[in-house]
Amino acid sequence: MTTTLITGGTVVSATGRMLADVLIDGETIVAVLAPGSTSLGHDLPSTVDRVIDATGRYVIPGGIDAHTHMQLPFGGTSASDTFETGTKAAAWGGTTSIVDFAVQSYGGKVQDGLAAWHELAAGNCHIDYGFHQIVGGVDDDSLAALPWLIDEGITSYKMFMAYPGVFYADDAQILKAMQVAADNGLLTMMHAENGPVIDVIAEQLVKQGKTSPYYHGVARVWQAEEEATHRAIMLSDITGAPLYVVHVSAKQAVAQLAAARDNGKNVFGETCPQYLYMSLEEQLGATSEEWGDFEGAKYVCSTPVRSRAEGHQDHMWQALRTNDLQMVSTDHCPFCMKDQKELGLGDFRKIPNGIGSVEHRMDLMYQGVVTGQITLERWVELTSTTPARMFGMYGKKGVIQPGADADIVIYDPNGHTSIGVDKTHHMNMDHSAWEGYEIDGHVDIVLSRGTVLVEDGAFHGAKGHGSFLKRGLSQYLI
Amino acid sequence: MTTTLITGGTVVSATGRMLADVLIDGETIVAVLAPGSTSLGHDLPSTVDRVIDATGRYVIPGGIDAHTHMQLPFGGTSASDTFETGTKAAAWGGTTSIVDFAVQSYGGKVQDGLAAWHELAAGNCHIDYGFHQIVGGVDDDSLAALPWLIDEGITSYKMFMAYPGVFYADDAQILKAMQVAADNGLLTMMHAENGPVIDVIAEQLVKQGKTSPYYHGVARVWQAEEEATHRAIMLSDITGAPLYVVHVSAKQAVAQLAAARDNGKNVFGETCPQYLYMSLEEQLGATSEEWGDFEGAKYVCSTPVRSRAEGHQDHMWQALRTNDLQMVSTDHCPFCMKDQKELGLGDFRKIPNGIGSVEHRMDLMYQGVVTGQITLERWVELTSTTPARMFGMYGKKGVIQPGADADIVIYDPNGHTSIGVDKTHHMNMDHSAWEGYEIDGHVDIVLSRGTVLVEDGAFHGAKGHGSFLKRGLSQYLI
Amino acid sequence: MTTTLITGGTVVSATGRMLADVLIDGETIVAVLAPGSTSLGHDLPSTVDRVIDATGRYVIPGGIDAHTHMQLPFGGTSASDTFETGTKAAAWGGTTSIVDFAVQSYGGKVQDGLAAWHELAAGNCHIDYGFHQIVGGVDDDSLAALPWLIDEGITSYKMFMAYPGVFYADDAQILKAMQVAADNGLLTMMHAENGPVIDVIAEQLVKQGKTSPYYHGVARVWQAEEEATHRAIMLSDITGAPLYVVHVSAKQAVAQLAAARDNGKNVFGETCPQYLYMSLEEQLGATSEEWGDFEGAKYVCSTPVRSRAEGHQDHMWQALRTNDLQMVSTDHCPFCMKDQKELGLGDFRKIPNGIGSVEHRMDLMYQGVVTGQITLERWVELTSTTPARMFGMYGKKGVIQPGADADIVIYDPNGHTSIGVDKTHHMNMDHSAWEGYEIDGHVDIVLSRGTVLVEDGAFHGAKGHGSFLKRGLSQYLI
Amino acid sequence: MTTTLITGGTVVSATGRMLADVLIDGETIVAVLAPGSTSLGHDLPSTVDRVIDATGRYVIPGGIDAHTHMQLPFGGTSASDTFETGTKAAAWGGTTSIVDFAVQSYGGKVQDGLAAWHELAAGNCHIDYGFHQIVGGVDDDSLAALPWLIDEGITSYKMFMAYPGVFYADDAQILKAMQVAADNGLLTMMHAENGPVIDVIAEQLVKQGKTSPYYHGVARVWQAEEEATHRAIMLSDITGAPLYVVHVSAKQAVAQLAAARDNGKNVFGETCPQYLYMSLEEQLGATSEEWGDFEGAKYVCSTPVRSRAEGHQDHMWQALRTNDLQMVSTDHCPFCMKDQKELGLGDFRKIPNGIGSVEHRMDLMYQGVVTGQITLERWVELTSTTPARMFGMYGKKGVIQPGADADIVIYDPNGHTSIGVDKTHHMNMDHSAWEGYEIDGHVDIVLSRGTVLVEDGAFHGAKGHGSFLKRGLSQYLI
Repeated sequence: MTTTLITGGTVVSATGRMLADVLIDGETIVAVLAPGSTSLGHDLPSTVDRVIDATGRYVIPGGIDAHTHMQLPFGGTSASDTFETGTKAAAWGGTTSIVDFAVQSYGGKVQDGLAAWHELAAGNCHIDYGFHQIVGGVDDDSLAALPWLIDEGITSYKMFMAYPGVFYADDAQILKAMQVAADNGLLTMMHAENGPVIDVIAEQLVKQGKTSPYYHGVARVWQAEEEATHRAIMLSDITGAPLYVVHVSAKQAVAQLAAARDNGKNVFGETCPQYLYMSLEEQLGATSEEWGDFEGAKYVCSTPVRSRAEGHQDHMWQALRTNDLQMVSTDHCPFCMKDQKELGLGDFRKIPNGIGSVEHRMDLMYQGVVTGQITLERWVELTSTTPARMFGMYGKKGVIQPGADADIVIYDPNGHTSIGVDKTHHMNMDHSAWEGYEIDGHVDIVLSRGTVLVEDGAFHGAKGHGSFLKRGLSQYLI
Repeated sequence: MTTTLITGGTVVSATGRMLADVLIDGETIVAVLAPGSTSLGHDLPSTVDRVIDATGRYVIPGGIDAHTHMQLPFGGTSASDTFETGTKAAAWGGTTSIVDFAVQSYGGKVQDGLAAWHELAAGNCHIDYGFHQIVGGVDDDSLAALPWLIDEGITSYKMFMAYPGVFYADDAQILKAMQVAADNGLLTMMHAENGPVIDVIAEQLVKQGKTSPYYHGVARVWQAEEEATHRAIMLSDITGAPLYVVHVSAKQAVAQLAAARDNGKNVFGETCPQYLYMSLEEQLGATSEEWGDFEGAKYVCSTPVRSRAEGHQDHMWQALRTNDLQMVSTDHCPFCMKDQKELGLGDFRKIPNGIGSVEHRMDLMYQGVVTGQITLERWVELTSTTPARMFGMYGKKGVIQPGADADIVIYDPNGHTSIGVDKTHHMNMDHSAWEGYEIDGHVDIVLSRGTVLVEDGAFHGAKGHGSFLKRGLSQYLI
Repeated sequence: MTTTLITGGTVVSATGRMLADVLIDGETIVAVLAPGSTSLGHDLPSTVDRVIDATGRYVIPGGIDAHTHMQLPFGGTSASDTFETGTKAAAWGGTTSIVDFAVQSYGGKVQDGLAAWHELAAGNCHIDYGFHQIVGGVDDDSLAALPWLIDEGITSYKMFMAYPGVFYADDAQILKAMQVAADNGLLTMMHAENGPVIDVIAEQLVKQGKTSPYYHGVARVWQAEEEATHRAIMLSDITGAPLYVVHVSAKQAVAQLAAARDNGKNVFGETCPQYLYMSLEEQLGATSEEWGDFEGAKYVCSTPVRSRAEGHQDHMWQALRTNDLQMVSTDHCPFCMKDQKELGLGDFRKIPNGIGSVEHRMDLMYQGVVTGQITLERWVELTSTTPARMFGMYGKKGVIQPGADADIVIYDPNGHTSIGVDKTHHMNMDHSAWEGYEIDGHVDIVLSRGTVLVEDGAFHGAKGHGSFLKRGLSQYLI
Repeated sequence: MTTTLITGGTVVSATGRMLADVLIDGETIVAVLAPGSTSLGHDLPSTVDRVIDATGRYVIPGGIDAHTHMQLPFGGTSASDTFETGTKAAAWGGTTSIVDFAVQSYGGKVQDGLAAWHELAAGNCHIDYGFHQIVGGVDDDSLAALPWLIDEGITSYKMFMAYPGVFYADDAQILKAMQVAADNGLLTMMHAENGPVIDVIAEQLVKQGKTSPYYHGVARVWQAEEEATHRAIMLSDITGAPLYVVHVSAKQAVAQLAAARDNGKNVFGETCPQYLYMSLEEQLGATSEEWGDFEGAKYVCSTPVRSRAEGHQDHMWQALRTNDLQMVSTDHCPFCMKDQKELGLGDFRKIPNGIGSVEHRMDLMYQGVVTGQITLERWVELTSTTPARMFGMYGKKGVIQPGADADIVIYDPNGHTSIGVDKTHHMNMDHSAWEGYEIDGHVDIVLSRGTVLVEDGAFHGAKGHGSFLKRGLSQYLI
C-alpha cells in the first residue's frame, strides 16, 4: 500500500479550518496531524511514499455532486456525457463522487432500471458513483421494490410532479410512495413543478408562435414551482416522509421550504449553479431583442433559469447562507447544440432540457466565497459535507478524517480558472453554458481514494477506478 | 511534556462521528488517527505516556458554557458560586470552558469593570474562562471602550432591555452601541425583555397581594420578550450589527428570530436547560394550589420558565433542531435559598434571579439525545462547537482536531447520572433546581488542556489551572 | 299594487343600524323614512294598505344562502329536499334567496345541465333562486359555454378538486377554465380538497376495517384542504381569475386565504354553520367510544367537521370577524338516514355527503351575535349583504333601500327558537343535524318581494312565488 | 324648518350605490326614496322648499377627516390654519366634519387642555368638529382623566412614541394608559415611530452636514415605524386595548398591522394622501441633485413620505383595498414656507412637521377611483363611513339614511379640479404641497346639517355654523 502525506495546507471543514497534515494509507485517510509534528517520535515525511506540498492552499474533501444525469435518455436523444466522459470532467473540476439517477420508466421494473444503469456505469467511471432511483411509474410493483433498494445501497428515490406522460406521478401515487418511504427510511426526492399547468401554458405559447427558447422560461412560471413545492411539503407532512426538493430556482419555493423548516419538518432543498448565476433575461433571452434567438437553447433546463428582475438569484444565495437550501448540485444533463438542442428549433418544448456543469461546480461555488456570498466553510459544507450526510455517505465521504476515503482536493485560492470550450472544458459538449466565466481560484490536485487523478494540469486517472457507492440512510435528518 | 492517547472511542463532531484515536502532546491535540493504526511505522500506545481507553464511549470536545455569572452581585447579594467553586462544578459536568460576564455598572468605566472581573477570576479557575462585557451604562466613555475590548480578547458585550435603574439601556443607547459594534466586529448580546412594562405589571401584582414566586412568571409576560426581541432585531437591522439574544424562552420570540434569519440576518439565540425542562405551572407554581408557596423561588430566573400549556418547552426543542436557536448555555447564576432567595419572601421582585446549572448542562442536553429531541451530533454542536465558533474560540476550542486544546470529555452512554444535592451536586448551593433529574448517560473523564480533571468519580484538577481565553471575533457570522 | 309600511323597527345594515320605517310598494322598497315622520306632509300609515309593527325588533334584508343543493343526485340517491320543500324551509328560517347549483356532468353539455335545473326549479320555489353552474367536466365544449352563462344570469361556476371520477377537475382543466373566467368576469368557485389523496387514505382505512362515519373525518385530513386551497390560489394567481373557496373548515386553509388577501388578491371564502358548531370528536364520533357508531352519518359532509382539539371552530369564528372569510352559506344537501345515509353502513365512503341547514342559518348565525362572536351588523353582512355583492345581486337583494326587492325579515331578539324535528323543522329529512340547538332569537315575519311568507308562526307563501334570479357580475371584487 | 330634496343622483354607500332621492328636513335626512316616487301619494318636489338636481352625479355622505391639527403649536410656531380657515377649506373640499386634537402637554392637566381647545374652536368652525385628546404627559392625573373624557364626548386619545421631550410616552406610560382605555372603552391612537432612535440618527446626520429636508426622510427609517407599530400592537395585546395607528406610511408597518388583524386583534390603521402620492425621492429630494434644496421642506411631515423605489406608495393603496388600513385622514398640519418652514433652514430637525391637505382629501382619494386603485364604494367607506364608525359618530355622520345629519356632498365625476395656490386653494398657506395635481372629478355642492356651504363655485357658509361633535364609543370594534 502506498502512503501519502499532504503537508502544509489549510484543511477546511464545514465548521472551520486548521493547519494540518493529512496522512493517507492506500485509499484511506489514516491520520490528521499537527503540521510538521514530531511528537510521534519519528520523521513522517521521510517514511511515507509520497509527500504533497499543499502550502498556501486549501485541503478539502472531494466534491460530491448529488444530481447528475450521465447518458440519460431524454426527448428522443441522450445526455451527451457518458459515465466515462462525465466522471472524467467531474474529476477535472474537483468532484470525486457523483450520485446519478437510475431510471425506472412507466411500465418497467425498478430492478431492471437499476440493473441497466449499473451496466452503463460499471467499469467506466473515473470517480466513485452512486445512484438515486427514479421511479417513473408508481405502481404496486415499484412500491414493493422501494424497501429492496435500501439493501442495494440506493437510499433515495425521485418522483416528478412534471412531465405528464413521461415520469409524472400524480398525488395519489406520491402519497403511496411517501408512505413506503416513511416506513423504510428512504429519502424522497422531488422534481417540484406543476407539469400539467406548465404544459397548458407552453402549448398556448407555441400556438401563438412564441416558440423560441425564451418562452421555455416564460411557460414555466414560478407559481408552478411554488405550488408543487408546497404540495410536496403537505404530502410529506401527511405521511411523515422526509422530502428533498431538487433544483430549486424560485424564491417563492424557498419561502415554502423555509416555512416548513421553521415548523420543524424534515424538508430540504438543493439549488444549482445556473440558478445562482443565470437569468431568464440574460441567458434564455440571449442576444435577441425579440426573444427569438435560438442561442438561449444552451440554457434550457427545468426548473428554468428565472427573471433577475424578480430577484431569484440573490435569494438563492441568501437561502444557501441561511440553510434554507442545504446543498448545491449541478443537475448535470448535457446536450450538444448540434443534433440535440437543435431538436427544438421552432418549438422550445422539444429542446432537450439540461445544462452541463459537473466540471465547474466547485469553481463556481468557490467564486461565491470570493465575492462574499458564502464562507469558505459553507463552500465545503454545501458541496461535500452535507451531500455526504444527506445521502448516507458521511464518514467515508464528505470529510477529512481518519477512516474516510482519501477523496481530497487541493484548491489554490491564488490560482485562476477561465472556463471555456477552448480552455478548461472536458465535458462532451460542443459548447459550454459557462463560456467566459472567470474564477479566482483553481483546482490544483485531485485525489480519489488515494489516487491522484489530476495534478499539474494533467489527468492521471483511469476509467474504471471509480467504484459503486453503496449508500446508507440519510444522516442529516432531525 | 506528557503525551496521552485516547483509544477506541467514538469521536463525535457537529457533522458526524468516527472511530478514532486522539493523540495529545502536552496541552494540545496533535493527531486524530485511525484506531490502532500502525501505518505510522511504530506502535503508538507503547510510546505515549498514558493511554486512556474510551471504548464504547463518546469522545467529544469539552463543553463550553457561554453564559455564566460567577459571584455576580445582584439584588443586594452575590451569586453563591465563586469562580473557584463554579468552575469546579462545571468541570465535574463536562464543561471545560466558560464565558462569564465582566460588569460595567452605570457610572463606572468599562476598563475598571473588566479589571475587577479579571481580579476575581485570575488564579481561581479550574477550567479556562473568558469574558463578555456587560455594558450597564451606555455613555460616551463606554462606547469609546468597545473597540478597546477587542484587543483585550473580549469580542462580545451585553446590554439589557430590562432592569431599569440597574443595567437597562434605552433604544437610543442600544442604537449607538450597535453602531460601534457594527463598525468593529463586536457581537451584541441582548437580554431581550421589555423591563419597563414588566415592572409596571409586577408592581400591580404586588399591590394586589400576589407576591409569591409564581407571580414572577405571571409578570414577565411572553409579549414583553417577543416585543423586545423584535425591537432588538430592528435595531440590529438599522445598524447592521449582528445580534445574539440570550436565554430565549418564549416561542413567539423564537418566531421573531426565525423570521429575521429567513431574511438572511445575522441574528442568533441561545436557550437554557430550564426553558427546555421547566414550566410556570410545575416549578414556579411548585407545590401550592394557590400559587402561594415559596418553593418556587428556586426557579426564579429571567426570562422566566414559561407555561407548559402554551407549549414553549416543546418549541424550544424544536428550535434547537431547526437551528432557529443555535446554542444552549446555562445562564448559571446560583443563589441559596437561605439568606438569598429568601430576600424575596413577601415580594417576588426581591428574589435574586437565577438558577444554578453549570454542572448539569452537558447531561441535561444529552438526555435530549436519549429522548430523541436532538441528534448526538447536534448535542456536540449546541454545547461546544457553535459556542466556540460564535464567540471566536473555534480551532482552539469546540472541536477535536490537531492544534486544538485538549479539552475532551469521555461520555458514557451506558452510564447513569442522578442529580441531587446528596448525590452529584458540586455547585455552592443549598439546593438544586435539578434535584431528582435522572440522566441516561454519564460524564466519565474530563480533560482540560491535556490535564485530567475528572476520572473514576474523583476530581484531580486544581484551582488556577484555568487560564483566560482571549477570544477573536465571531466565526459564525454569514 | 299593495303598499306596506314597516314601522318602529331597527333597520340593520352591514355598517350600522337606524330607527326607520320602510315603505314597500308592490314588490319593491320605495322609501326608508324617519320613524313616524310627518315631514312628508301627510300621515303615511293611514295611506298604506298595510302596516307591520316591528317595534323592538330588527328589520334586516332577507337571508341569501348562496350554496344549496336541492334534489342533487349524489352517490346513487338524491338530496331529499326538492326545490319546493327546500325553499319553503328556507323561508321559514328567514332566507329569501338561494343560489343553487346546476350540474354539468362529465360528458354532458353545460347548456343541457342548466336547462335541466331550470326545469326542476321553475314554478316550484317559494323564494327567489339563482344558479351557479357546476362544471363537472372541463372540456372544449364546457369552456366555450362559460361566457354564454353570463348572458343567462349565471355569473359563477364551480369546479371540484375532489371526487375523482365524478366532478373532479385536474390542474390543467382548472387553469383553462380560470383563463376563460378571467377574460369574462365569471367568479370561479372551488371545492378545495385534494381528492386523490383523500381517496387513497379512505381506501386504506376501509381496508383496515375502519368503516364508521368517524373515519370520514379522519380520511379527509386538513392538509388535503390546505393544500388544495393553496393550489387554487396559485392557479388564480397565474390566470388572474378571482377565486371563491366554498365550505372552508380548516384553520390552515383560512391561513392560506388570509395570506393571499394580505397580498391583495381577489380570493374569498365561505364557511358553513357546521364548521362553526360541530366537531370530529362530538358529531362524527357521536356516541361511540370506539368511533364505531353510525349516528355520526348525520354529520357526514365534505369538507368534514373537524377536530375541536385542533381549534378549527374558534378559528372559523375569528375568520368571520377578520373578514378572512366573507360569507356563511349552508351547503344545504339533505339526506335522510333511512335509505340514504344508510347506504354507507359498513363503508363511510358510501354515505351521501351532506347536512341540511337551509332553514337554520339565520338563527345559528344570530346566536353568534348573542354569544359575542360577531356583531349584529356583521350578521347581516355575512348572511345577506356580502352574498348579494359577491354574486351580483346587490341593490336588488342584500340591502334595505329604495329600489331593492322587498325581501325583509323581522327578527325578534327577545324571541326564542328551539330546533328539532318535532319542533320547528320543515326540511324534508327524517332527522335534524341541529336537533336540540336553542337560539336566543326568532324569525318573526318574512317577506319576499313584498309578499308575507311567514307570520304569526304560519306559512302564507305559495310554491311558484319564487322567481329566477338573473345575476350580474360580482360587485365585491377589488 | 326648511325642506330640501336632492333628486336624480346616485347615492353611494360603503356597500353599493342606488338611484335615490334624499329628503332633508331642517338639519336631518328624513327619507331616502325611490327617484320620482309618487307612491307617497303626492308630488314631493312641489312640496319641499328646495330641490337640488343631482342628476349624473354622486350623492355621498360628507367627508370626515379624523386627523387634523388646526392652529397646533409645534416647534416654536403654530399651524397656519385656524379652526376658521381650516374648516372653511375643508368644506370647500367636501369634508363636513373634522376630528382635531386637543392637547395636554407634559405637566398640564387634560381638562385644561381640552378646555383650551374648546375655546379655540367654539364659534369659529364652518363644519362640525370633534376632538381626540393628546395625552402628552401620562401621569396619575391624566390617567384619572381618561374615563372623564368619555362623558365629554372625547372617546379617543393619542400618545406618541416619538418626540422625546415633547409628547413622548414611554412603554410603561403607554401600558398604564392602555389599561385604563381597555377598562373604559376609549380608543388608543398612536404615533408609532421610535423617536429616540430617530433622534440619534437625525443628530448624526446634522453633524455630518446633512441638514436639508431630504435627510428628514433619511433619518426617519422605516424600521423605526415598523418597530414602534409592532411594539404598540404588543402593548395592545397585553392590555386588551384596541389600537389605532395614525399616518401609517411604511409597508412593513402595514405588514405588522395585517398580521395582528389576521390574528383577530382590534388593531387599525389610517394612511394619508401624501403617503399614497408622494415620495422621498421626488418630494423630499425635490429639485436638487445633491438633496440639498430646501424646497423639500414643503413635504416634511412625520411619519415621512417614503422611498418610491421601495414600493411603499403602491403598498398603501393595496392595504386600503385589502382593509389592512381602514381609513384615510390628512394629518392636516399646515405651515407656511415663510417664517415657518424656514425655521429649519440649515437643520431639518427645526422644520415644522406637517402638510396641509384638509381641502383636497376627497378629491385626491376620488382620483384613486379614477385610476382603479379603489372602488367608488371604498372611497366613501375610507373617507366617511369608517371614520364615523371608528370614532363613534355613525348614524349621525358617515351615512345617508333617515335620522342622519344632512352632511352631503354632491360629487361630479364629469367635473375637473386643478389644485394650486392660484386656483382652488383655500387653506391659509403660502404654497400647496399639492400644487399641480389634476383631479378628474369635482366637489359640486356641499351641505352641512342641511345648510348649503358650497355651491356654484361659491362659499355660502358661515363661521360658527359648525358645532361640537360629542362622540360615542367606537362602533367599529369586533
